Amino acid sequence: MAVNLSAPAHLEPIAGAEWAVGEAAINKPGRNDIALLKLVESATVAGVFTRNAFAAAPVRRAQKHLAAGRVRALLVNSGNANAGTGARGDADAQTCCEDAARTLGLDAEQVLPFSTGVIGQPLPLARMQACINGLGERLDGNGWLDAAGAITTTDTVAKGASRVVDVGGGDKITLTGIAKGSGMIRPDMATMLAFIVTDARIADTDLDSALRVAMADSFNAISVDGDTSTNDACIACATGAGAAVGRDHAAWPRFVAALTDLARELAQAIVRDGEGATRFITLQISGARNVDEARAVAFTVAHSPLVKTACFAGDPNWGRILAAVGRAPVDDFAIDHVSIALDDVTIVADGQPRADYAEADAAAVMAASEYTIGIDLGRGAAAATVWTCDLSYEYVRINAEYRS
Amino acid sequence: MAVNLSAPAHLEPIAGAEWAVGEAAINKPGRNDIALLKLVESATVAGVFTRNAFAAAPVRRAQKHLAAGRVRALLVNSGNANAGTGARGDADAQTCCEDAARTLGLDAEQVLPFSTGVIGQPLPLARMQACINGLGERLDGNGWLDAAGAITTTDTVAKGASRVVDVGGGDKITLTGIAKGSGMIRPDMATMLAFIVTDARIADTDLDSALRVAMADSFNAISVDGDTSTNDACIACATGAGAAVGRDHAAWPRFVAALTDLARELAQAIVRDGEGATRFITLQISGARNVDEARAVAFTVAHSPLVKTACFAGDPNWGRILAAVGRAPVDDFAIDHVSIALDDVTIVADGQPRADYAEADAAAVMAASEYTIGIDLGRGAAAATVWTCDLSYEYVRINAEYRS
Repeated sequence: MAVNLSAPAHLEPIAGAEWAVGEAAINKPGRNDIALLKLVESATVAGVFTRNAFAAAPVRRAQKHLAAGRVRALLVNSGNANAGTGARGDADAQTCCEDAARTLGLDAEQVLPFSTGVIGQPLPLARMQACINGLGERLDGNGWLDAAGAITTTDTVAKGASRVVDVGGGDKITLTGIAKGSGMIRPDMATMLAFIVTDARIADTDLDSALRVAMADSFNAISVDGDTSTNDACIACATGAGAAVGRDHAAWPRFVAALTDLARELAQAIVRDGEGATRFITLQISGARNVDEARAVAFTVAHSPLVKTACFAGDPNWGRILAAVGRAPVDDFAIDHVSIALDDVTIVADGQPRADYAEADAAAVMAASEYTIGIDLGRGAAAATVWTCDLSYEYVRINAEYRS
Repeated sequence: MAVNLSAPAHLEPIAGAEWAVGEAAINKPGRNDIALLKLVESATVAGVFTRNAFAAAPVRRAQKHLAAGRVRALLVNSGNANAGTGARGDADAQTCCEDAARTLGLDAEQVLPFSTGVIGQPLPLARMQACINGLGERLDGNGWLDAAGAITTTDTVAKGASRVVDVGGGDKITLTGIAKGSGMIRPDMATMLAFIVTDARIADTDLDSALRVAMADSFNAISVDGDTSTNDACIACATGAGAAVGRDHAAWPRFVAALTDLARELAQAIVRDGEGATRFITLQISGARNVDEARAVAFTVAHSPLVKTACFAGDPNWGRILAAVGRAPVDDFAIDHVSIALDDVTIVADGQPRADYAEADAAAVMAASEYTIGIDLGRGAAAATVWTCDLSYEYVRINAEYRS
């Protein structure tokens, strides 16, 4: 049911990065559910993680290992989030890192663990260990598509994208990223799981700064259902096997732009594959006093079940948009200068329905699978864009049946 | 589909208060959709209104008329909210007040107008005027049940309740209230429409203070879908036809308690009749540092689509509760002292799943149509209770088809 989204046919390999995947039947058999990424010794790594106060065991361990600054591998499992699992979860995450380190000839501290899936159940550790132990033999520089599939849960489509940046002097930098996620999506810092790897040679502080810029307009600007996961993480790795780039380099803006663009494609792919999504909706807020205000309005509209069900129905019931904007946490907010448009059909101008508004025009916009809801607050110059999807029967079905 | 809720069989009449209802075919024919309440001259009135920045035309007019301090009548229509209707909406609300005043022999300023229903469409004014003009002839002290029906929209059950308070010396005070609402329910100050009338003789400032106390633990403690209406209002009227009561009176606490209890029954009725609701859920938060924090956690859980769909499925997927608690806006929040229970089945204690937790026990609780989710934050002594319902296919159906 994903909205205008298909799995990538090809992802560019990245020199210095290899994936191995395997099946541990974590939640159900018949699919790969473990993926292991090995990076060359020159690699730098940056990451952003969930702001959920109850971060899962693997998130806390990944943060610790990342801080130690020696990362050489990422271990990802789907099917079980290892969240809400207490002291046992902490120990299990560590055991997985140890096993991955052993098969790769590394220290456990050099492995970042990631888990996604059901919350509150212990990992099936024995099955996972048996699987992980064999992965060192199966590393493959062309393993990106397999890895993209192995990390999915309720995703209906595997998600990945590549970019090539010309950094001058005949040098090119390649970036490839994969992501998973379709529900519990309202990243508060990073998102679900996303892994972006480039062959660039970049200092870790520069990579971290580029990643944070890229996040703001990608994973931090999407919402499926307003629920923030305990396991969100987005990791950027630079293998250093290719050309150098850094904050003082002329190609830096191009690199950051490519990273942002790639992250945005992955983030939008998560929304397009949002649980039960039938529409991909861009919320474009303008005329705000500041960006925080614009984002607050955007997310209030994006999280409104009434707006989302109207989008599902293709019903231009714009009063629901107006009501959602009106309850956004914005100070001294008056309706008088607010405008609302669906693509180029302006419905409300200066707080009043336009005399020439014809509902059929708005219905025509909402019949499409993708459109923009434009909201101008008429009180400033700041703007924000957020991507979301509708709320359908299918969302309820998926989440009422998720564990059965 | 309302959860353990049936329409009241009888509502106590209130001396000094009479209702008339009529059909204006505002949204669809075949039902009463206008109700007019006339109060005796001695009446005092207090009200609380939506905090939505885009309050509807009738809300703004009602606030203005209430401030003038001469209120003698309430005019309510269902089927159309007269919200997002610009200058025309303002004029229409005023016209309705003038017509109601004419049929009752009052001034327009003595009438408070209320509208509920579809947002963004002009009122069918001519039909409404024709209906209102005849209402003065049809006032009836026993018209409460008819009024409760006339103000409904997507409600499946009319809502009303009565209380009698013994104020000593052989005197009794009677209170009767009616309410409507089942979607766009997350009152931020008052709620949907609720009208409570008592025969007590109370100063308007005392009535206002009692109403605000009653709100906190009733209409301001419920949520169906997190959407705050542009038209929420709760009005308390005291006709003065019965015994006197006031802030310095020994019976004051009993009066406030009865008003709160009545308001809570009406508020809970709205949740029980929440759009598509199949479960009535009490969220009991304890161990918070302050009440704001407890309420923030309660509403974050109440608004989580993932928690709500798990409740619909009767699936004790408590990790979703944990994840929702973890993303609540609470400072320095650690999982270590958090406990989660379903009725008397404790699932998580001190941040960890209990060793003796059996999922079948939790599933048995969630199979019932009513239960309590208890969340102890383990960091203070403050508590809050919020009532909510689940998210079902039916919610999506109702809101995807509302206008068709």
